[in-house]
Amino acid sequence: MTVRGFPAAEFEDRVARAQRYLRRDGLDALLVTSPQQVRYFTGFDTQFWESPTRPWYVVVPGGGAPVAVIPEIGEPGMRATWVTDVRTWPAPNPSDDGVSLLAATLRELAGPGGTVGAELGRELQLRMPVVELREVASRARVTVVDGSAAIRSCRHVKSELEIDKIRHACRLTSDAYARVPGLLRAGDTERDLVQRLRAELVTGGADASPYLIGVAGQGGYDNIIMGPTDRPLGTGDVLIIDTGTVFDGYFCDFNRNWAIGRADDAVRRAYDAVWRATEVGINAARPGVRACEVWHAMATELTGAGSSGNNVGRLGHGLGLQLTEPPSNHPDDRTVLQAGTVLTVEPGMEFAPGLMMVHEEDIVVRDGGAELLTTRAEPHLPII
Amino acid sequence: MTVRGFPAAEFEDRVARAQRYLRRDGLDALLVTSPQQVRYFTGFDTQFWESPTRPWYVVVPGGGAPVAVIPEIGEPGMRATWVTDVRTWPAPNPSDDGVSLLAATLRELAGPGGTVGAELGRELQLRMPVVELREVASRARVTVVDGSAAIRSCRHVKSELEIDKIRHACRLTSDAYARVPGLLRAGDTERDLVQRLRAELVTGGADASPYLIGVAGQGGYDNIIMGPTDRPLGTGDVLIIDTGTVFDGYFCDFNRNWAIGRADDAVRRAYDAVWRATEVGINAARPGVRACEVWHAMATELTGAGSSGNNVGRLGHGLGLQLTEPPSNHPDDRTVLQAGTVLTVEPGMEFAPGLMMVHEEDIVVRDGGAELLTTRAEPHLPII
Repeated sequence: MTVRGFPAAEFEDRVARAQRYLRRDGLDALLVTSPQQVRYFTGFDTQFWESPTRPWYVVVPGGGAPVAVIPEIGEPGMRATWVTDVRTWPAPNPSDDGVSLLAATLRELAGPGGTVGAELGRELQLRMPVVELREVASRARVTVVDGSAAIRSCRHVKSELEIDKIRHACRLTSDAYARVPGLLRAGDTERDLVQRLRAELVTGGADASPYLIGVAGQGGYDNIIMGPTDRPLGTGDVLIIDTGTVFDGYFCDFNRNWAIGRADDAVRRAYDAVWRATEVGINAARPGVRACEVWHAMATELTGAGSSGNNVGRLGHGLGLQLTEPPSNHPDDRTVLQAGTVLTVEPGMEFAPGLMMVHEEDIVVRDGGAELLTTRAEPHLPII
Repeated sequence: MTVRGFPAAEFEDRVARAQRYLRRDGLDALLVTSPQQVRYFTGFDTQFWESPTRPWYVVVPGGGAPVAVIPEIGEPGMRATWVTDVRTWPAPNPSDDGVSLLAATLRELAGPGGTVGAELGRELQLRMPVVELREVASRARVTVVDGSAAIRSCRHVKSELEIDKIRHACRLTSDAYARVPGLLRAGDTERDLVQRLRAELVTGGADASPYLIGVAGQGGYDNIIMGPTDRPLGTGDVLIIDTGTVFDGYFCDFNRNWAIGRADDAVRRAYDAVWRATEVGINAARPGVRACEVWHAMATELTGAGSSGNNVGRLGHGLGLQLTEPPSNHPDDRTVLQAGTVLTVEPGMEFAPGLMMVHEEDIVVRDGGAELLTTRAEPHLPII
């Protein structure tokens, strides 16, 4: 069993790195509001994010320890983390839900006229009312700007302790995928099979599967983000299951494909092509290589195999505390991979009009070449 | 089995009601970006929201049908809903991730100089980069203001079809809670028991349990939002489990309490007091009554039983497509309950320093008095 939580040194290192990026970006402090950022800097772990009522704040100052500004309901939990400066207000409070407390904290930590980075840019969502951010900035007399570059730089390279958790999520999910053929029963719908797998993942040690889709279609599927539905599985179907399953906050994200009963040659060829493109992607991902180069290597392989593109828009992405993180394996993403970058390699192709084949594996970029975190998919389409 | 999905008439009614509130609030269109709002107006159901990379938009114009402005990856799924005007862009696209397409759509639907309501207010999160909202407004030449009042009014009263789904989630969760005593094994940790319940919920027909916490402590627990942890359950513990479990997008949200082996008198008295306060809350919730009045009735009962308050900050809340929705049973919430308001009744008290007892049931407000959606908790503390 992989250990849960992190030693305080892990968080001290994250904060120190964030502070270097704050200096780089000319920011006096960083304000974060969303589950993954709060967890990244504090270790605070709750499912209570599911309730949108109350905002939660953590401020990382230019120097020194982070400060939590949170609803009273969270005090026992936050006091159990490494954070010592925990400021609370009775929430919900429609007339002042932390606004004055956060404004005072920002004024103190960013200084008068200071500049505060916040989650305003791409792939980030501000988890507080936008109208209240304006109010906070005005009362604190600070300027709030997009802090996404600092957040992205900080989270891009994973520590070995983070990688251990992602590897654990990948392994237990690989084990559960291996049991899928044995889970299928005659007359099953997509939902029957996927929900049986969901229970297997929990029994196998997963905390939860926030993303667990299943889509099947005769001779192929037309998308990879919907389902499962009550459509019965039948002979000639091609089935994809994809999951973001979590252990201690860290995601795996990879899929598997099966044919039910039989598969025609076009499907088998597409599977083989995408399996090879995955191999190409895994081999291309090395420190110093750009995400767009990983894309290019895979895209060349797919085009050579007759792909007419796909509607996913990229061929993999970062992975960690979120199902998808920057960078994107995309022609326009010039992010340089580093030792410790965790990536999904996710080539997909439309092999016939409206029919897709998508593979996915998870890797960590290493100096000597990528380490595969998942148990590699079978090289030829499994028939069940 | 309760039916999945909704007929188109349900969505037509939602849009017509939204348009009445847009007129009331002086808005020319409503822009929504978050999973629950997009689903409310379109029926679009995907777990892909778990990936924060791509923004998704739905615009409800002042008159006529809603328009979806979404990444290409979502087109097959959105085309399967009742929405006919689906506009897509290839995403992710770092240089223009839907900004120009959304701006053109808003200019068309809100008119030049129009006013657009967006998710900028309390209990809402804007699921798009804040910096891009500014860019969209500028390019569309529209003014974007807080549209939360229209959204809140629209979603406050549930249709009978929505209530059916919430009732189904409540029933299958009630059934699973009834099996908890039989799930407990000697040596179990909080996590062992809670994860066994998670698997039971799936097997019993739940889609997922995005919120499923368990906290135990000797003689009582100190919070209701953390856990489960690897702490072993032992004699003298008081255990609370609380879940937001989902069927077809709709949540239940209620908890249950148990003592392990034995319980002292203070715990038993607290349980009885909070059970009675729940009864008071259920009886107080009638059409025309304000949420603050439901709070007051329960708070009076709790104070009479020796409560020294609690850190939750309210005594229940709305429920539906989200674990918690407006209104709050809170002294400052003057929302008038209506027939069709779905509420949790959630009295909690600190009965000794740092020790809490919290109960929760789910109801729908009816003309003749509340309908209980959950199977009522046992009137005295169950010992397992």
